[in-house]
Amino acid sequence: VITDRLSTALSDLPAPDADCRRAVEARAAEILRPAGALARLDALAARVAGWQGTTTPRIERPVALVFAADHGVASDGVSAYPASVTAEMLRAFRTGVSSINAMARVAGAQVFAVDVGVGRPTGNLRVEPALTPERCDEAAHAGVTAVRALDTDLLVIGEMGIGNTTAAAAVAACLYGGGAETWVGRGTGVDPAGLARKRAVVAEAVRRVGPSAAPLEILRQVGGAEQVAMAAAVLEARRRHIVTVLDGYVTAAAVAPLHATRSDALDHCIAGHVSSEPGHRLVLERIGLAPLLDLDMRLGEGSGAMAAVPLIAMACELVTAVPTFGEWFGS
Amino acid sequence: VITDRLSTALSDLPAPDADCRRAVEARAAEILRPAGALARLDALAARVAGWQGTTTPRIERPVALVFAADHGVASDGVSAYPASVTAEMLRAFRTGVSSINAMARVAGAQVFAVDVGVGRPTGNLRVEPALTPERCDEAAHAGVTAVRALDTDLLVIGEMGIGNTTAAAAVAACLYGGGAETWVGRGTGVDPAGLARKRAVVAEAVRRVGPSAAPLEILRQVGGAEQVAMAAAVLEARRRHIVTVLDGYVTAAAVAPLHATRSDALDHCIAGHVSSEPGHRLVLERIGLAPLLDLDMRLGEGSGAMAAVPLIAMACELVTAVPTFGEWFGS
Repeated sequence: VITDRLSTALSDLPAPDADCRRAVEARAAEILRPAGALARLDALAARVAGWQGTTTPRIERPVALVFAADHGVASDGVSAYPASVTAEMLRAFRTGVSSINAMARVAGAQVFAVDVGVGRPTGNLRVEPALTPERCDEAAHAGVTAVRALDTDLLVIGEMGIGNTTAAAAVAACLYGGGAETWVGRGTGVDPAGLARKRAVVAEAVRRVGPSAAPLEILRQVGGAEQVAMAAAVLEARRRHIVTVLDGYVTAAAVAPLHATRSDALDHCIAGHVSSEPGHRLVLERIGLAPLLDLDMRLGEGSGAMAAVPLIAMACELVTAVPTFGEWFGS
Repeated sequence: VITDRLSTALSDLPAPDADCRRAVEARAAEILRPAGALARLDALAARVAGWQGTTTPRIERPVALVFAADHGVASDGVSAYPASVTAEMLRAFRTGVSSINAMARVAGAQVFAVDVGVGRPTGNLRVEPALTPERCDEAAHAGVTAVRALDTDLLVIGEMGIGNTTAAAAVAACLYGGGAETWVGRGTGVDPAGLARKRAVVAEAVRRVGPSAAPLEILRQVGGAEQVAMAAAVLEARRRHIVTVLDGYVTAAAVAPLHATRSDALDHCIAGHVSSEPGHRLVLERIGLAPLLDLDMRLGEGSGAMAAVPLIAMACELVTAVPTFGEWFGS
């Protein structure tokens, strides 16, 4: 079922408006500043222009969707925090007092938390499929529905779920190989014994799933409900031409199966940052996204993506509000 | 005279409020997120708290000062642009249409351009002192006066002046040794022949000044009027406990003589970014500031500093608006 919903979306991905993108690139080269002085921001703005289908890209209504769910694998002692923290954080998001809410206020963004299984843990990915086909479809549907409800010009994707860096590592390890050591980090700060347990769990999950599972099946087998919801949300955003900012390791691992299925699936995505979780940089390299920020963040919640929102808004303002040399000297 | 004005300020530097800084550090460790998950932003907020003398640091009125001046060395063909561009850019800043104005709108900041010698080039640093003692004092006075006029809780320091990456390279080369090749980059995009001229100019300036000049005398001999003004503005901000965000290579080289004179002179400063000008990273290492952003920017105007302003505002909001675990679970 997940294969149906996500595969169908993947088979019909819209493309950006290349004329708008090129028009912004051409304008950027003539703007009243040394040629190429802000090349990276200009390229970002041109990409946004392509997806927004306009020569005047802008970010005025950024929204963060924070998907939250619980994980059966949390009972294996892979996290520094008890599973009950997921529900507490969901309450904090909705009360507006969490870190992502604080950052969003500065960025002028709204935050919506989406419960896709808090208090309803998945199967333990170590020994069984994390998600049944029905649960998987439910999570994907929730991701699509959440995006459909929005009026936004920039979507931030984040997550919360105790145990979910274990799920992220398992997805990456199944998808890319290389062993649990490559993909398992300390997450929210697990101690050395917990880290060893986490590695053993991921190694066992990789053996269970085997080397030939399809990318979307890997997501169902060892990913979490919030990861499936994020993958579906990213594809729904693509369908709606909404540029999407990815957060940390869990988010990157959630969308990596989309990229593995179709290499252009994430062309509307921006990597907000690279976290201090070692696997994140490796996944970003594989999915071909260069992070905007590198500030040793490892919080999740969409925080590393939200931190990048003002930069993206600035990039758009820089190609629209500043005159070209011709416009300025002609004025 | 410059030695008098800047030396006097350097001899009496205020210290931050260590109690406020420590209180924010202690609170950050208890905030409703994994311990250390945002360690770098928390440390930034604690530093701001120390300088603002409060346990609730905030950034509500950021202001950029963009110091502009012309350089005698521009006549040596060291820039990709004619010297007349300095005056045009000053007009653009004041009309509100330049890149720094666009970025400031997104960051909620004001921009003031300060003319410290546009159309009044300095001496050619290759063959003579760039600034007479009187001109030097005038520039320092302008920097101090500009800061005194502000009501701000975060100061962004930027510059404009055709030829001023040559001045920056000359200051760094005189201060740190290592030869012109180490310190001279392409600036706004000079061609290979121009780059060779630029290196020769810097090498000649280094020979002229000699190996034993005092740091502040180096600034007078080979720096520009806007660099002296920036150094003075940074010290006046320190006197007023205003946290100051430094921009690119020219800014870093302007304040490096302060650091060389007194190693704690820049403790209230934040490096907004590291630019693609190779010497910038080297100067930042020497003055002990780790940049927040690394986005291959090379514009000046304060742009790389302004890009970091929302991050600093977020860091403050993150330690003040989010409850501690105790506050949250007690509520």
